[in-house]
Amino acid sequence: MSYLDHAATTPMLPEALDAFVAAARAVGNASSLHAPGRQARRRVEESREQIADALTARPSEVIFTGGGTESDNLATKGIFWARRAADPRRNRVVASSVEHHAVLDAVTWLERHEGAAVTWLPVSRSGRVSAADFAEAVSGDDVAVATVMWANNEVGTLQPVPELAALAASAGVPFHTDAVQAVGQVPVDFAASGAAALTVSGHKIGGPIGVGALLLGREVECTPLLHGGGQERDVRSGTLDVPGIVALAVAVELSVKTQRETAERIGRLRDDLVARVHAAVPGAILNGDPTGRLPGNAHFSFPGCEGDALLLLLDAQGIACSTGSACSAGVAQPSHVLIAMGAGDAEARSSLRFTLGHTSTVSDVDALVAALPGAVERARRAGAVKSR
Amino acid sequence: MSYLDHAATTPMLPEALDAFVAAARAVGNASSLHAPGRQARRRVEESREQIADALTARPSEVIFTGGGTESDNLATKGIFWARRAADPRRNRVVASSVEHHAVLDAVTWLERHEGAAVTWLPVSRSGRVSAADFAEAVSGDDVAVATVMWANNEVGTLQPVPELAALAASAGVPFHTDAVQAVGQVPVDFAASGAAALTVSGHKIGGPIGVGALLLGREVECTPLLHGGGQERDVRSGTLDVPGIVALAVAVELSVKTQRETAERIGRLRDDLVARVHAAVPGAILNGDPTGRLPGNAHFSFPGCEGDALLLLLDAQGIACSTGSACSAGVAQPSHVLIAMGAGDAEARSSLRFTLGHTSTVSDVDALVAALPGAVERARRAGAVKSR
Repeated sequence: MSYLDHAATTPMLPEALDAFVAAARAVGNASSLHAPGRQARRRVEESREQIADALTARPSEVIFTGGGTESDNLATKGIFWARRAADPRRNRVVASSVEHHAVLDAVTWLERHEGAAVTWLPVSRSGRVSAADFAEAVSGDDVAVATVMWANNEVGTLQPVPELAALAASAGVPFHTDAVQAVGQVPVDFAASGAAALTVSGHKIGGPIGVGALLLGREVECTPLLHGGGQERDVRSGTLDVPGIVALAVAVELSVKTQRETAERIGRLRDDLVARVHAAVPGAILNGDPTGRLPGNAHFSFPGCEGDALLLLLDAQGIACSTGSACSAGVAQPSHVLIAMGAGDAEARSSLRFTLGHTSTVSDVDALVAALPGAVERARRAGAVKSR
Repeated sequence: MSYLDHAATTPMLPEALDAFVAAARAVGNASSLHAPGRQARRRVEESREQIADALTARPSEVIFTGGGTESDNLATKGIFWARRAADPRRNRVVASSVEHHAVLDAVTWLERHEGAAVTWLPVSRSGRVSAADFAEAVSGDDVAVATVMWANNEVGTLQPVPELAALAASAGVPFHTDAVQAVGQVPVDFAASGAAALTVSGHKIGGPIGVGALLLGREVECTPLLHGGGQERDVRSGTLDVPGIVALAVAVELSVKTQRETAERIGRLRDDLVARVHAAVPGAILNGDPTGRLPGNAHFSFPGCEGDALLLLLDAQGIACSTGSACSAGVAQPSHVLIAMGAGDAEARSSLRFTLGHTSTVSDVDALVAALPGAVERARRAGAVKSR
């Protein structure tokens, strides 16, 4: 099997799994006062320091959560609630129109359920937010929170996060960034970014699913989503998932430590993939920013094809990839990211995402390039029949 | 080490850990359409069926979450929001005054942040809610949701859940119960209970931390806490934690399958513990219901002692137990459960919880009974010095 869907989830690093198992064999609730509890707490605090070191945050700024979706929901809703509670005029959320659904749908809920006003920022043809648009959007005194992802999960486009964070800071607006796809692929430095909050997910970087972190500046007020035992600065309650946290810390540390060489290696492999796809399928269109993108991401439109059909044809050849669009309940929606980038419906539906990661090799690319022309040919024929 | 704190967290079952590791070695996001994604989805759906079978629910009624705290927050806030949105007069939450903090603090947040009215139900000296009080509380037409735990996490008292659920149903009010401590200790049958929603946690039954479930009746409307990819009937978004879910299912299945023999074995052990503590420490008071309680729970007050001091003295002898009260930021609060049961401040502060589980043996009880009289003696002397 050629697994070209690392952006959806990447295999767990053996080091992270080993750390999980070792921690899972010990008993102890990290909030208990007895010796096994204190040992569990120590493992959590060491993990917190590891993550803080790797991403240049203070240990107290690391809030452990149940994953990227929870971190995104906590940051957008929690900061919105806290800022509006402090000043009812702050009722606006500023967000890019290409956010992951965990931000997009959280913000839409704030709009529909909490009466928030929302400014959706447009993006360029390559998927990038303009600093000028952002500056204007955060300039009013009604903005509670602004959120723009570090790197797009579908097309891989990088956003100018430090520039946006600086603009937000000078407007007095807390800035959140979903860095789920960025960590381990590009340098991520929380302190230098200027962001108030930053989302990290375990399973995108070789850690476990179901665990993540929100880096949250010490001064940033954030109303909890989950109330209870008061863990994590009272911002996130729930028994601390000691084995998950220990494994997350290993994954963050390793993926950050190897980021440069990973980026070089998979970047070369991705460039090779892009060149060979262009050669094998004339007419294929590379989406996203040609240079300012994640090293592991290649995202194409194949005009005349349905991405879903292509995905299944490739799957039948042992190649795992993604349309990059969320497909709920069997109803394929065209990607909101590509639509925001100005693609038409048909173009958006014809797209396919290939994402490389730590286990990717040239044989994965070979397999794709061997299978792709035939699959595209068949998908085009099926599309032509359907559109008659 | 004698671990007598299974109610805080219990060691992971080897079968559950093995299942976790096997699933973690496979790659695949359960929402992906390709073969590894479909295999991951199959593991999730098999786990859902396993859990549904064990707890007598429909598979579609099993919503996977990040644990007990999330399930409790989702049920109380989500059902409250949905019911109030459907009819703004429904603005009341009915809850027992001895709930776990994950319910207690969620309900308090609804009161302070969302303007909910709350009826806190009193409990008897043994910690039990009265059906008459409950019936009266849910009789008004302003009740959005009612929540009473299956078994108390501190004193172990069982609540008359089927009776309360039936009263709620006849009043047209959805009834939620936190069954975190009950599963695997007493029979839990979701369908027969009549509850609309029921909370399950992984790490209290030998599964992993950071994974749990909310059993949610098919007709029960529940506004999501976490928005995003639309997983889990759109009630709970977030990448499905395949290894965690698989391990949770193993733990639910095994703990339910062995529930009767576990209850008999640890019930005998607990009765032995209670009798020997009474013999070793005259004046010790057993709290909670003498018979209608969890088989693994023994909860005492030791008049004249500070529970925290006793806990640390026992810890120094290799015995891990709990005061049963939440201790945040080093400030010991007297237990809200004992206060609700009518205990005075000093009595509440003098309490200690011993909880047995699947790894408990008579040698754990022997060690406790050997160490306890000396520890109580020292704690009393310290208390006497302090109160001079």
